[in-house]
Amino acid sequence: MMQLPKLDEYDSAPVYVQLSDHIKQEIFCGALVEHSRLPSVRKLAELLGISTTPVEAAYQQLIAEGYVYSQPRRGYRVRAVVEGYHDILLGKSDTQITEDTKGINHASMTNRQGQAASTVVSPDLQSLRPVTNVTYDFHMSHNDFSLFPYAKWQQYANRVWREEAEELLFYGNPQGERGLRNEIAAYLAQFRGVRCTPEQIVVGAEQHLLMSLLTQTMLRKGGIRSIAVENPGYRLLPGTFRNYGYEISPVSLDNEGINLDELDRASVSLAGVSPSHQFPMGMPMPISRRLALLDWAERSGAYLIEDDYDGEFRYSGRPISSMQGLRENTPVIYMGGFSQVLAPAFCIHYMVLPKELLPHFGEVYRTVLFEQSASRLHQRTLELFMRDGELGKHIRKMRNLYKRKHDLTVQSIQQHFGAWPGFEIRGEHAGFHLMLRLNSKQMANAMVATALKTGVQVASAAYLWANESVPADGKKEFMIGFAGIELEKIEPGIAALASIWKV
Amino acid sequence: MMQLPKLDEYDSAPVYVQLSDHIKQEIFCGALVEHSRLPSVRKLAELLGISTTPVEAAYQQLIAEGYVYSQPRRGYRVRAVVEGYHDILLGKSDTQITEDTKGINHASMTNRQGQAASTVVSPDLQSLRPVTNVTYDFHMSHNDFSLFPYAKWQQYANRVWREEAEELLFYGNPQGERGLRNEIAAYLAQFRGVRCTPEQIVVGAEQHLLMSLLTQTMLRKGGIRSIAVENPGYRLLPGTFRNYGYEISPVSLDNEGINLDELDRASVSLAGVSPSHQFPMGMPMPISRRLALLDWAERSGAYLIEDDYDGEFRYSGRPISSMQGLRENTPVIYMGGFSQVLAPAFCIHYMVLPKELLPHFGEVYRTVLFEQSASRLHQRTLELFMRDGELGKHIRKMRNLYKRKHDLTVQSIQQHFGAWPGFEIRGEHAGFHLMLRLNSKQMANAMVATALKTGVQVASAAYLWANESVPADGKKEFMIGFAGIELEKIEPGIAALASIWKV
Repeated sequence: MMQLPKLDEYDSAPVYVQLSDHIKQEIFCGALVEHSRLPSVRKLAELLGISTTPVEAAYQQLIAEGYVYSQPRRGYRVRAVVEGYHDILLGKSDTQITEDTKGINHASMTNRQGQAASTVVSPDLQSLRPVTNVTYDFHMSHNDFSLFPYAKWQQYANRVWREEAEELLFYGNPQGERGLRNEIAAYLAQFRGVRCTPEQIVVGAEQHLLMSLLTQTMLRKGGIRSIAVENPGYRLLPGTFRNYGYEISPVSLDNEGINLDELDRASVSLAGVSPSHQFPMGMPMPISRRLALLDWAERSGAYLIEDDYDGEFRYSGRPISSMQGLRENTPVIYMGGFSQVLAPAFCIHYMVLPKELLPHFGEVYRTVLFEQSASRLHQRTLELFMRDGELGKHIRKMRNLYKRKHDLTVQSIQQHFGAWPGFEIRGEHAGFHLMLRLNSKQMANAMVATALKTGVQVASAAYLWANESVPADGKKEFMIGFAGIELEKIEPGIAALASIWKV
Repeated sequence: MMQLPKLDEYDSAPVYVQLSDHIKQEIFCGALVEHSRLPSVRKLAELLGISTTPVEAAYQQLIAEGYVYSQPRRGYRVRAVVEGYHDILLGKSDTQITEDTKGINHASMTNRQGQAASTVVSPDLQSLRPVTNVTYDFHMSHNDFSLFPYAKWQQYANRVWREEAEELLFYGNPQGERGLRNEIAAYLAQFRGVRCTPEQIVVGAEQHLLMSLLTQTMLRKGGIRSIAVENPGYRLLPGTFRNYGYEISPVSLDNEGINLDELDRASVSLAGVSPSHQFPMGMPMPISRRLALLDWAERSGAYLIEDDYDGEFRYSGRPISSMQGLRENTPVIYMGGFSQVLAPAFCIHYMVLPKELLPHFGEVYRTVLFEQSASRLHQRTLELFMRDGELGKHIRKMRNLYKRKHDLTVQSIQQHFGAWPGFEIRGEHAGFHLMLRLNSKQMANAMVATALKTGVQVASAAYLWANESVPADGKKEFMIGFAGIELEKIEPGIAALASIWKV
C-alpha cells in the first residue's frame, strides 16, 4: 500500500502533478509493485480531503505516461514499468543493496546482484575493495575509530553549521579555505618539519585528484614527460601519470629506499618516493639517502614527490621529519592528508607545491576552472579542531594505541611464524602495517584466498610490483595491517593465520 | 604573552616534548613574536606545577632547534624564525587572512598580502574568483540560501553522525554510496527523465574530477582522441580533455543549439552539449534537435556529454526532460550535481555512464585505485533527505522563488535597457542567469570593470568563446545572474547598471 502524499498548496506544481509525482516515486521505491491496486478516485480524494478532479487528472496522467493501467471493475493498477526504470525498482527492493548501504557484505554483492538484474554489465566498484565481514581483519589501511572524539567533533561541526552555514554553503576557495591552509602550514611545520606558506598548499578531496592537478601543472611547466617510481610502490602515481601520457620508469629499492644509481640511469626529471615509511616495504629512508636524493634532484633539475601519508605514526623514537623541509626551497612536492590521522570520511587531502610551480598551477586553474572538491563545512570544522590543538592531542592518543597494537602484532608474528623457513618482518615501527616475508611454494594470492576463506584478511604485496616483477629472493610478501583490528583479536588472528597456512 | 599549555600525563610524548611543541605552536601562531621573553624556568615550572627539569629540557631543545636564544640576565627569548616559517607567521597575524576565512574581501587580498609577504609568488586562486562585497551582485552562479532547510538538514546530519558515524568514518564505495545512487537514479527518472540503473551512476566531489575520470574511461575505450564543444561554452570540457591530449573542435551555435552541419564536418566521435539551458546563451534545445543529435551520434558511433547542471530550473512550463532518456540506451554521458539544487558546499556531483562504458571505467579504477571524493557523511545525509522527499520539496520552493526573481529581472532589464541600440534578452525562462546583449563600442571587459567599480557585479561572456572569436553580430554579451541577489535589489541594481553604462 502506498503512503499518502503531503500536498503543498504553496508548491508551484499543480496538485495533480504533485500527486502523480508522488505515485511515481512510490512505484520507483518499490512501495507499489506491479499490478498492485491504487485506491479509487473517490477514495483517494476523500483520504486527501480534496476534490476528485485532481485525482482523476493524476491517474489519467499516469496512464498516459505508462505507469498505470485501468480495467473495468478492477480499478487502477500499477503497470510493469519500462526496462530502464525496472532496474531501479530491482535496485531498491533488493535486500543486498540495503545491506550494502550499511557497508556489509560487499564481496558477495556483485554476484547476487548480477543474478537479480541481468542488465548489470559491470561489477560495482565496491566489489573490488576489501571485504569487511571477516573475523580477523588485518587490512593495511583500516583505522581504529574507538577513540575518535565524536562528541567534540560534533560540537565543532554544529557550531560551524549554526554560526556560518548560510555563508559556507556557497562555493569556497578552489585552492582550499585559507583558514584551514593556515592551520595545515603550522601543523606541518610543527609535526612534519615541512617549510611552506599557506599559498603553497592545495587542498583537495582525494589523492588521485590532487595528483591529476599536479600532472597538469607539470605539463604546463613543460619539458617533463617521464617519472620514476618506487618498485614495489603505490599504484596511484604511475597510474595517474601514465594516463596523462607520461612514461613510467620503475626503480628498485635497496634497504634504504629508492636505488640512486638506477634512478640516475633512468634519466628522468621527476621521481615519486615515500621516505617516512616506504609503501609497501615499510623502511624509513635514512637522512643520508634523503640528502643524496635532494642532491640528485638539484643536480638534474628534477622534482621529487614525497608521499607522507602516514608519517605521523612512528612507534620507536619520534617521527622523522619530512624530506621537503630538510633544506630551504627544496624541489619537493609534499603529499599529505587526514585519512590516517583523523578519518577517510571527511575527504580532505593536500599537497604542498614548490613556489616556482604556483604560477603553472594557476594556469591549470584558469584552463579548467575547477571548484574546490573538499566540503567547506568539513574544512572549517577541521580548521577549528586544529586551531584548538585537538588534532595534535588526538594523534598522540592514537599513536599510543597503534603502538600497543603494533608491538603485540610483532610479538605474535614472532611467536607463531618465528621458526618458519625464510621468516622475516620488515617495515615495522611505523604506519598502519608491516611486512611479513616467508619462503613458500604456494602462490601468494592463493595463500591470501585460503586465509580469507577461513576468516582472516591479509593482503599480498604482489600487485604492487611493476610488470609482475618479484622480490629478488623470491619470498612471498604479505602486508599485515594492525591499526584497524581490535587489540584482543591480534594474537588469535595471527595464530589462526599460521595454522591455516601450515596445513 | 603565551598561553599555558595543558600537559597530559597520559600523552605518549614526554612532558618536555609537549612543552616545547606548545611553545613552537605559540611562535607559529604569532602569540610569541620575535625577541619576546619567555618566563624563567623556575617561574614556568611553578605556573605549571611541575619540576624545573622538564622546563629546562624544553628550553634547551628549543635553543638546539633554533627557536629560542638565551642571553645572560636577559633570559630566554624568541629567535627570528627561519624564512620558511616566517611566512606562516605573517600569514597568521595578517588581518586580511582573517577576513578571508570569512569569505570577505577576496579581490583585494592578493595585493595586500603581496605587500605583506614578499615571498608570495602567485596570487591565491581565490583572487581569480568573483568578489562578494558588491552592492548589486548579479553573479551567474550564486544561489539563494534564505529558504535552505537549515534545521531539517542538521537533524538528518546529526542523526547520521549519532547513529552511523563510527561506520561511516571509514572509506566508502569509490563509485559513491549505493544508497545515495539508488536515490539519484529514482530522482533522475522522476525529475529529469533519465533512464539508468544505480550501477551507471558515478558520484564525485567535483566536476573536473568526474570529467577527468570520464576522459580516462574514453581513453581506455580507445579510438577517440578529439571532442567537439559548444562555442561559446563552458570551459571545463575543452580544458579537461585538452590536458589529456585531446584535440578540441569548437562548433558554433544556432538558435536551437549546436550546429549539426558543422558538427558533422568536425568528424569527431565525442561532443559536449548543454541542451536544457545552453551555457552561456541560455536557449533550450528543442526536441527535434535533440533527436537529430542522437541520430548523429548513432550514425557515427559517437558519444554525447549532456551537461544538465541547472535543468531543474525552468520558469515557464515544466522542466524539459533530459536528452539521455529520450530513447533506450542512448550513447549519452549525463552530468549533474547538487550545487544548484541544494548548495555547492556539500561537493556532490555525479555522472551517468552508458552501460558499455562501465567495464572501461572499472579499468580506470584498477589503474589508479582512486578513493571516493565526496564526503560519506554528506552522501548519507543527502540520501535520507532525498528518500523522505525533502529535496523535491526544496526544489519546488526554490523554483518558485527563482521564478519571481527571474520575472523581475526580465522586467527591470526591459524597463531600463529596452530602448538601447541592439537590445536583446536571450536565454531567459530557465536556470540562474540570462544573457543581456547590446551594441556598444566599448570593450565588454571594460564595461564590466566600470560596473564593478560602482558596486554592480555582472560578467562578460567574452571569455567563453573559443580562440577569441566573437558573436557574428558583434554585440556585447553579459551574463546577468538573478538567483543570488535579494529580490528587492534587482530593480535598483539593473537601474544602476543602466545609469553607469549610459555615461
